[in-house]
Parts: sequence; structure tokens; C-alpha cells
Amino acid sequence: MSFLSRLTRLLPHLSTTMSKPLMLYTVPTPNGIKVSSFLEELKIVYPSIHYDVYAIDMANDEQKEPWFIKLNPNGRIPVLVDQSRDNFTIFETAAILLYLQQHYDTENKFGWDPKTDEYSETLQWIFFAHGGVGPMQGQLNHFRGAPEDIPYAKKRYLNEVKRLYGVLEIRLSQGRDWLVGPGRGMYSIADINVLPWVRIHAYSGIDSLDEWPNVKRWYETASARPGFSAGTTVGKRS
Amino acid sequence: MSFLSRLTRLLPHLSTTMSKPLMLYTVPTPNGIKVSSFLEELKIVYPSIHYDVYAIDMANDEQKEPWFIKLNPNGRIPVLVDQSRDNFTIFETAAILLYLQQHYDTENKFGWDPKTDEYSETLQWIFFAHGGVGPMQGQLNHFRGAPEDIPYAKKRYLNEVKRLYGVLEIRLSQGRDWLVGPGRGMYSIADINVLPWVRIHAYSGIDSLDEWPNVKRWYETASARPGFSAGTTVGKRS
Repeated sequence: MSFLSRLTRLLPHLSTTMSKPLMLYTVPTPNGIKVSSFLEELKIVYPSIHYDVYAIDMANDEQKEPWFIKLNPNGRIPVLVDQSRDNFTIFETAAILLYLQQHYDTENKFGWDPKTDEYSETLQWIFFAHGGVGPMQGQLNHFRGAPEDIPYAKKRYLNEVKRLYGVLEIRLSQGRDWLVGPGRGMYSIADINVLPWVRIHAYSGIDSLDEWPNVKRWYETASARPGFSAGTTVGKRS
Repeated sequence: MSFLSRLTRLLPHLSTTMSKPLMLYTVPTPNGIKVSSFLEELKIVYPSIHYDVYAIDMANDEQKEPWFIKLNPNGRIPVLVDQSRDNFTIFETAAILLYLQQHYDTENKFGWDPKTDEYSETLQWIFFAHGGVGPMQGQLNHFRGAPEDIPYAKKRYLNEVKRLYGVLEIRLSQGRDWLVGPGRGMYSIADINVLPWVRIHAYSGIDSLDEWPNVKRWYETASARPGFSAGTTVGKRS
């Protein structure tokens, strides 16, 4: 990329660093949408929160370029830079959600204080999704579009994703609307962290959520939220 | 399993619940060793910490039995039950590490207060391992022993694990002994959370760590720690 075209692309970024403290480097994939949906939810509750978006050119592997590797050595979106806190940089989707909840959800509308048991339960369900639903549904999507047709792998990951949806079903069938919180639970980053994967179930070859009625109800309730749905297009390249 | 044999197996568990507050259900797999190694490290610093171990019979899928599913709906080891806190139950390895660090590492020898930036950095590296190294090296191990020989999948996961070790190498080559902490860093749950996967690199078909000299140095330093190595056999069935 020429110096001039690079500069032109960076200009919107540079011109807004003064006005908005949060800069999100993203793409509207499931991992990207987790963070953008949470930011949109936060903006509704806390109107003073603003963030800028840098839409990464994934088609040209921009997330593997040296400038991005400095932000995240893993070369993956999303990355958040908090310009109000000495450009503190956060990679890994779930770490970003926990950071935003701690620093910007000052009334704990979407999470709990780290001293509470609900915080640990939030971490448990976030890790469940982060090590299970995300990587396994990611592998399923890979093998559905891989250059070699490998029925063994497609079956392996389809079965595993269905099993994992079944684990969510166990939890949500226990008189719950949301994964964590007393009583029927509270919509929180535990839900936001996994909903964007469930959202693309049809893309992953799971035509319907009927097999998991409580997951279906949970997903439908969440996806009707204006904040959640607003987040699903953030970072789309025009 | 007959009632009598079940009872016999539970007896060691029941007889010790009075004396030791922490009960760990585990097997010495990489995920199990993360927690047992951390507990052994904690015991050295805090001699008052005691825990009991229930060695899960994975060969007979004991972790899928109804009594275990009540502890962890995902049917996976390890699980920790804290009998001193109303039997609060924690599943997901990394959530257990964070719980133990918060409640039992009172001097923050292996981690940081949730208010600090180091805490967020700890989460970032824990999530990196939890969604990357763990599941990808797990898939590599699966395809190395799978009933069908699928070169495409073996190559895919070998390449990905090597790439992820390369990400650790980037971090550790930046004048660091440990993944997180000021200066050269501090041995913490960020390291403990990924070391047991690196430990089995040869089992995964990666004969040597020479390609990643800083990872090699880091692994060798950690594995010489008495606490870390003591954790590697916890939960072994006699």
C-alpha cells in the first residue's frame, strides 16, 4: 500500500482520536459483533460513551500487517484501544467485554463486581463459549467451506456444536432467561459473549434452533434488543 | 456401577469434606494440570491451603454421569467445589484459576487485583490460550489418533499450533520472562494457564521447542518449579 493511500485510510482515525476515547478495530464476524453489540448496549444506558470504528480489510489480511500485530500479536480482530487510558490496548474478544464492563458499565447493568460469585459464574460461561462454542463452530464453518470435502471433520464439528448448544439448553432450561444472575438471570456479557455465534447457526448448517427450545427463546429475546442488533453491522466496509 | 462400588469410591471424598475446604475433580490432562499445578504453587506460599482430589474415571466417561453433569453441564474436568463457601462450584479451567487467585492468593503472588491493567493483560493471555492453544492443540491430538487418517486436518492443526507458539514467542521475546507483569513479568496464572499444553508438545508431534527459543526458555524455567511439577501427577488413578 502506498504511503498516500495508507495516510488517507488513517485520516478518519487520526481526526477522531481527540473526540472519542475508544477505538475499535473490527469486522462484523461473530467475535467482532460481541464487542460492537456490547458497545451499542452501553451507549443506550450511558449516552456519554462514544467509540470510533476502524473497519479492518480482512479480505486483504490487514490484521496480519505489522502495525496490527503491534496491537495484537495474534493478528485477530477485534482490538480495542482506550485513548483515555494512555492507549491501553486490549485484544481477545472476551477480555474486551470484561474490560468494558469494568471501566464503562459503572452501574453494573451488564455484569457484576469481581468480588461476587456472579462474576465467577460470568467467567465460567464466558470461558465455556470461548473455548467451546467459538472454536468448534469456527472449525465447523471451516470444514463446510474447505478446499477438501472431509465428511469426518464436518460431522465431528457439527456434533460438537450441537452438543454445546445442548449445554446452553441445560442451563437455560433451569428457570432462566439469561445465563447468569439471581433468579431468572440478567442479560449480561455472559450472554453477549455467545449470542453472535448462535446467531449464525444457519450459516453453520443448523437450520433451526427447535431442538433447543430454551436457547431459541433466549436468542430471540436477545436479538430483538435494539442494542444487540445495532452491533451486528458495525465495521462493515462500504 | 453397583451401589456398593459407587459408595466405596465416594468414601474417601465424604470422609475428608470436613477437613479440607477445596475438592478438585480432575485428571492429569493439560486442563487438569493447570489447576493442580496452581494449587501446588499456592500450597507452597500458603501452607494452610489444603485440597482433596477426586480422580475422575475418564476411561469410563465418569465425567458424563448425571452426578457430574450437575457440577458441570459441559461434562468436562476439572471442576472445583469450595466447601468453605457454601459448596460454590466452578467449572472451566481458567475460571477456576481466576477464582483461586482471587480467593486464596491473598498476597497476589500469582496475579493482580481486578482493578489493575495487569489483570486485563492476564485475561487477554488467558483467553488467547483458552480459545487458541488449548482447542487447536486438542484438535491436533485428536486427528493424530483419529480412526480416519486425514492429512489435511493434521496439517491444519499442526500449522495453527505452531503459529500460536509463535505468538507466545513474540510476547516472550520482548524482554520478558513471563507473559504478564511489569518489567520482565511475574510468574502468574497467565503462564500456568498455557504451560501444560506446551508441556505436551512432543505428544502433539512437535519434537522440539528450538523454533521458539524464548518459549523454550520460559517452559524450562517454569517446569523446574517444584509447585508446577508437583501438579502434573495429581488425579492419576492408581
